[in-house]
Parts: sequence; C-alpha cells; structure tokens
Amino acid sequence: MKQGAFFLAIGDELLDGRVQDKNIHYAGQILGSLGMELKGAQVFPDDVDTLIEVMQQATKTHALLWVSGGLGPTDDDKTLDVLSRAFDVPLEESIEVKSHIAAMAQATGLPNLDRHNRQARVPKGAVHWLNGAGTAPGILFTYEGTDVVCMPGVPRELQWLTQHHLVPRLKSNHSQSTVHSEVLRCFGLPEAGLAQLLEPLVTEFPNIKIQYRPTFPETIVRFISKEAEGDELQTAIGKAQSLLGKTCYGVGTASLEERVIQKLRERGEHLLVAESCTGGLLAQRLSAIPGASKCFWGGVVTYDNTAKTQLLKVQDATLQREGAVSEAVAGEMVQGALALHDESWALSVTGIAGPDGGTPDKPVGTVCFGIGKGDWVKTKRRQLGQWPRAQLQLLSVHVALHWLRREIDG
Amino acid sequence: MKQGAFFLAIGDELLDGRVQDKNIHYAGQILGSLGMELKGAQVFPDDVDTLIEVMQQATKTHALLWVSGGLGPTDDDKTLDVLSRAFDVPLEESIEVKSHIAAMAQATGLPNLDRHNRQARVPKGAVHWLNGAGTAPGILFTYEGTDVVCMPGVPRELQWLTQHHLVPRLKSNHSQSTVHSEVLRCFGLPEAGLAQLLEPLVTEFPNIKIQYRPTFPETIVRFISKEAEGDELQTAIGKAQSLLGKTCYGVGTASLEERVIQKLRERGEHLLVAESCTGGLLAQRLSAIPGASKCFWGGVVTYDNTAKTQLLKVQDATLQREGAVSEAVAGEMVQGALALHDESWALSVTGIAGPDGGTPDKPVGTVCFGIGKGDWVKTKRRQLGQWPRAQLQLLSVHVALHWLRREIDG
Repeated sequence: MKQGAFFLAIGDELLDGRVQDKNIHYAGQILGSLGMELKGAQVFPDDVDTLIEVMQQATKTHALLWVSGGLGPTDDDKTLDVLSRAFDVPLEESIEVKSHIAAMAQATGLPNLDRHNRQARVPKGAVHWLNGAGTAPGILFTYEGTDVVCMPGVPRELQWLTQHHLVPRLKSNHSQSTVHSEVLRCFGLPEAGLAQLLEPLVTEFPNIKIQYRPTFPETIVRFISKEAEGDELQTAIGKAQSLLGKTCYGVGTASLEERVIQKLRERGEHLLVAESCTGGLLAQRLSAIPGASKCFWGGVVTYDNTAKTQLLKVQDATLQREGAVSEAVAGEMVQGALALHDESWALSVTGIAGPDGGTPDKPVGTVCFGIGKGDWVKTKRRQLGQWPRAQLQLLSVHVALHWLRREIDG
Repeated sequence: MKQGAFFLAIGDELLDGRVQDKNIHYAGQILGSLGMELKGAQVFPDDVDTLIEVMQQATKTHALLWVSGGLGPTDDDKTLDVLSRAFDVPLEESIEVKSHIAAMAQATGLPNLDRHNRQARVPKGAVHWLNGAGTAPGILFTYEGTDVVCMPGVPRELQWLTQHHLVPRLKSNHSQSTVHSEVLRCFGLPEAGLAQLLEPLVTEFPNIKIQYRPTFPETIVRFISKEAEGDELQTAIGKAQSLLGKTCYGVGTASLEERVIQKLRERGEHLLVAESCTGGLLAQRLSAIPGASKCFWGGVVTYDNTAKTQLLKVQDATLQREGAVSEAVAGEMVQGALALHDESWALSVTGIAGPDGGTPDKPVGTVCFGIGKGDWVKTKRRQLGQWPRAQLQLLSVHVALHWLRREIDG
C-alpha cells in the first residue's frame, strides 16, 4: 500500500544560493501534526526531463506527492508541462481561474498581462484551489492512488493554500492514524551522555522512538509513540525525567528563559542582570520573551573595568587584587546590582570569552557567576572549556539561567 | 563526463518539522561562488536502504556528492554505515580522529564517552578532516571519479569544515575555471528596490551575474564574473556602489558591527549604549566582535521606566509628558549615557517591539533613536513597520548602527 508523503521543491533559485527553501520544513510540520510522515524531499531545478522522472518515481510508493514552485507566469515555470507529460493528462484553461487572476490583478494594482493566463491552465480532471494570497491556483489530482498536489513556491501562498485546502482534505483522509510525541529539554550533558542515561528505556519501551537534537548548548530529546492512547509515552517521559535528574529542565517547547520569566511572573518578582563577558546576551535572551517587561527590570553591561566601578560600585582594590574575572568581582557585581533595585533577583557573569585574554591561571573559558536576592549572595567559578567566543557567551548565559531557575525553585 | 554537484541532507529532524535545513542553501552559495553547479538536492531520513540507493544513484552522474548529517554519536546516526555498504568500503577506527575527539572533549569539559568513538570510524582509504568546531570529522573519498564528501549536519560545523577543507580542495580541482566574486552589503531597501537601482548594470555587464540574498534586515548582493582578470568585476562594483548610494554600507564580508568597531578602534574612540526595546541586543552585537573590549565601554539596558530614571537620569516629567517611546526620552538617554563616560559616543534606542503595547499614536514598530558625543545630541523617530518582535529588535539595532557608522564618517 502506498503511504507517507514526498515533497518536491522546484526552482533554480533554491539551488544557486539565492533563496533558502522554507517549504520542506513547513510541509514536515504540517504533515507531522496530522500524523502523516514526510518520507523524503527533493530540490530540483526547472528541468523538464529530470522532473518527469522524479515525479513518476515518487508516485510509485507515496500516498501524497506535494510539489512547490514552477507555477509562475514566465517561460521558465514548467511544473504544469511536467505534470501533463509525467501523468499523460492534457492541460485546459479554467475560466474560473482566469477570472480570479484578473480580479487579483485589479485588487493589487498589477497589470493583467496575457502571460498570467499561463497560470490559468489546469490538468484535465484536476481540482483547482483558488489562491487567496496570489494568482497561481493550487492543483490536486489523483494518479494511481497517489494524491498529487501542486502549489506556488512563495511560502506565503503555499501556506495559505495548505491551511485553506490541503489540511482539511488530509484531515478527512487520514483521521485513523495518531502519533504522540513529547520533548524533554536538557542542559549540562552532551547527546552521548544523555543517551547513556536513557539506555534502559530503549529496551523497556520498544515502541517508542527516542531522538536527540543538539541545539547548542542544549539537547532536545524527543519521544515518539504511535500507539493510540499515549499512556505509555507519559510513563516513559516520567521515567526519563527521573533518570536525567537536574540535567532535564523541563517538558515541552518552552525555552530556559521562557521558564525563568514565567516563574518570576508567577511570583511577582523582578530580575536585574550585570554582565561582562556575555556583553548583553543575557539581557537580550530575557527581553526577547514577550511579556518580559513585567519582571525584567533591566541590566548593566560593564564591559570595561571602569564601567564596573562606576555602574556597579565594584571596588578598585578588588579588581586589582583578584582580577575582573573572579568570584569576588562577580559577588560585588551582584551587590551593586541589588543596590540599584532591591527586592529583585540579581545575576552576574564575568569571564574570559576569548579568543584573547586567557592566562595560565585563567584560560579562555574561565567564567565566574554571581546570584543574589535581598541580603544573600552566592558565587561560583566554572571552567566552561575552550569554545569559540560566541558559543562561550551562549554557554555562560545558559549556566547563569539554569542556576537562577534552580535557585528560584529553592 | 560527470559534472556538477548533488547534495544529500540526512536526518529525521529535517523532515518531521523540527529543524529547518540550512545546508542545501549554504552549499548552493559556496558552489556557486566557485563556479560549480548544484544540480539537485535531497532530504532523507536516517533510513539505511533508501540512502544506499540514493547515494549510488547520485554518484552515477555528478562530480561531487556532498552529504550532511547522520554522523553523530548515537545509534540513529547511520551515514557511515550507509557509506560503507553503498560503496563497499570497510570502516576503520582512526587513531588521529579518536585523539582529536578526546582532546575536544577535554577542552570543552565534555565526558569522553565510549559512544563518541563511533565518530572515529572512517572508511578505509578515505581522507578525514579534523573538525575545529565539533567532534565528528569531515570525510572525503573518491568513488568512480566522484568526490564523496560527508560532514556533520550542524551548520556551524559543516561551515567550518567547508571553509577550511572543502573550499581549498574544490578551488585546486577546478582551477581552470576561475571565478571572481565580490559582495556588497546593503541596508534600507528590499531586494526588488536594489534590483531596480542596479538594472543598468544587467545590460552593461552581460558576463556578470548579480545575485540577491536577503539576510534580514540586510540584503547581500553578489557579483559573479567568470572572466580571468576580474577588472570588469571591479568596474561593475564601483558603478554599483554609486548607484546604491548610502544604502550600500560596504564591500566584502565584514558586518555592520564589525565596521563600526573597526572605525572606532582606528580613531581610538569609545562607545556606550543605552537600550530599552532592544533589551541588550545592541550591546550583544557589538560585544560579539573579538576585540570589542578595546572600544566598547559598556551599556545600560533600561527596560523598566525606573531603570531609565535611576541609571540614566531620564526625568520623570519627560516620561510622563512624552512617554517612554519619544525622541525626548531617547535624547535624555544619550545624555545620561554620556554623563557616565564622557569622550564616548553614545547611542540610544527606545521603542515598541510588540506584540503588545502599541497605541493608535504609537503603534508597534515605533522606535526612537538618539546619538551623541561630547556636547551634541541628535534624535529621530521612525516607524519600522509591524514586524514580529525579534525582527523589530534586530531592525532597530541595524538602524542605530547604520546611523552611528554614517555619523562617525561625518
């Protein structure tokens, strides 16, 4: 039996570096949400002979062939001719599509050129879907049990046609199969370390697939189950959480900073950050969350030492004696931040992000952190490793937020 | 004769909607800049049998088969096994790769787990490229005249291996066809607007290909010439610059913030930033540049209004009268910043990044900017459009830096 879907993205511009294809990713999300598997995808230029072969091949095993692109008004748009030849159906001009194109042209001020009528051609016997976001229609026909769907390549138009026409059709066709999945968000261990901890689950839950996706500096672990109820999935997730311990900071899609913001908002508490080596990244990650203004008071980026003494009242003597990258300075940064706005949480980061500035005592990757609230302050020093600068900054931000999250929980 | 390249992106996560593939697009750009054609690309799951067939097929007609992904340490990473079976070569453990992985694990503080040794396997007779940005090596071997190259799927690692190893190899292989290319970096006009300005060059320089690559909020315009000397290219670049005017902020790869930092360093001047709606992003973009500490003094993220009055001495009366998003407040933020460290440049941003907080008078996308040095201050108000929050923050940072760059030039 034919099953799953294959996506074919057509266009020279997708291969010569001009345009980043976004339709494959979108198709994967849509199909996944409907419990249908995208089994493969191909990107091809507007080359008739190759495309005919690829389309014929794809319909042999898949229940859905979804094609984007090559439906434009110019001569290098060849998808309709390919369809016609690959599946041996003549093209007919659709009066309805033609008048839709004329109406769209009028509404958007485009000249209604004759060449747009190329876009009014439809394979004989096919269903056409009028395009609410552009001119070229979506097309659907069935060839030997495979649904063949063609849409314009512009993501906005493809998404409009998908939401309004393809999704309703797929929902009615594939209502029987359900897929459950859930993700765990982990920080502090690499993929291989997580896989080792979760090893027992591989044999205990043979019907659950475990996938690892590193998104530096975190790893997202996804559990996928095809059984109908999803009870087994919940059991597996629970066991995974206890195997992973504090390495797993949450279930679901919310990021570390979203969880921190949410916790602070629940408690009506505020946060203030004092950064050196992360240079504003910590503040930026927090303020990127909509609604952060409810609990994120602000921050100070004290890149230069005189900024530390002036804005955060770090002692010159401490800087001289311990150096800017020291637990003592991280602690004074927190105290200086708390003095700016009491009743806040304060978080500080000072480190050597490289590529220069390392010493034998304090190599690149040495980072000191401080945290405080009211009248208590804690500090710690970590060697985060010799990562490139950008990764080291990101890693430092995660260490700081991960620490804050645990301290808020108490 | 075999010619052109085929790209194969491997990974379940690229098809189920979790991850947007970025490697096909990057490969197209790199190959295009070397005058080599990417003839097709495929995205496939970690499914051994299908992959074997696809790889064998791709080597029949292409000079290069470039594979990304499936080289991780876990059991669902199958690329090496596929290679071994598709091209009938045994896998051997490489001592050199093994010790590189151990060294990377040590440098970055990762546990050196046995599982990582899966990544030390290399097809017999293949060249391996040590990965400066991760553990899994790049692999190159030749099968019936086709170069087969495998790299990890993480874009950062793939790009590192490409720049350090693949590009030099392709350059030496294809040295007969020299390709010159140069990029112009543009901000302030969309792709279609730039194309309109550059229209005269299309007819004047028929041998030069002009490609547009939008990387929000900028557009990079690449000029590619296949003639040997590159004189024509330089002439075209010069004409393009005068057609584009201030929209083009530079030739070559350096980013806007790199150019700003470089100019400040050349003049021995410093910079201080005062941010509200960009929440630290402006400071972060500057401090991400190695050597920024020589001229970036620091910044203040005054997210809350009390942070503006306390850290930057913005007047309560001004906030009451004009609102936080106003030229008056942007100006006082600059004055407050200059008071913290005179002889610096100061830059301020305050705006409505959304999704909430817009009013009929000041809709989402209203952003005010201030700039100053010594005893002068300028301000301006812009309506940047109703972009999503993250884009609006990025766009605001670019407007501020673009302004600073022009003011430094005088």
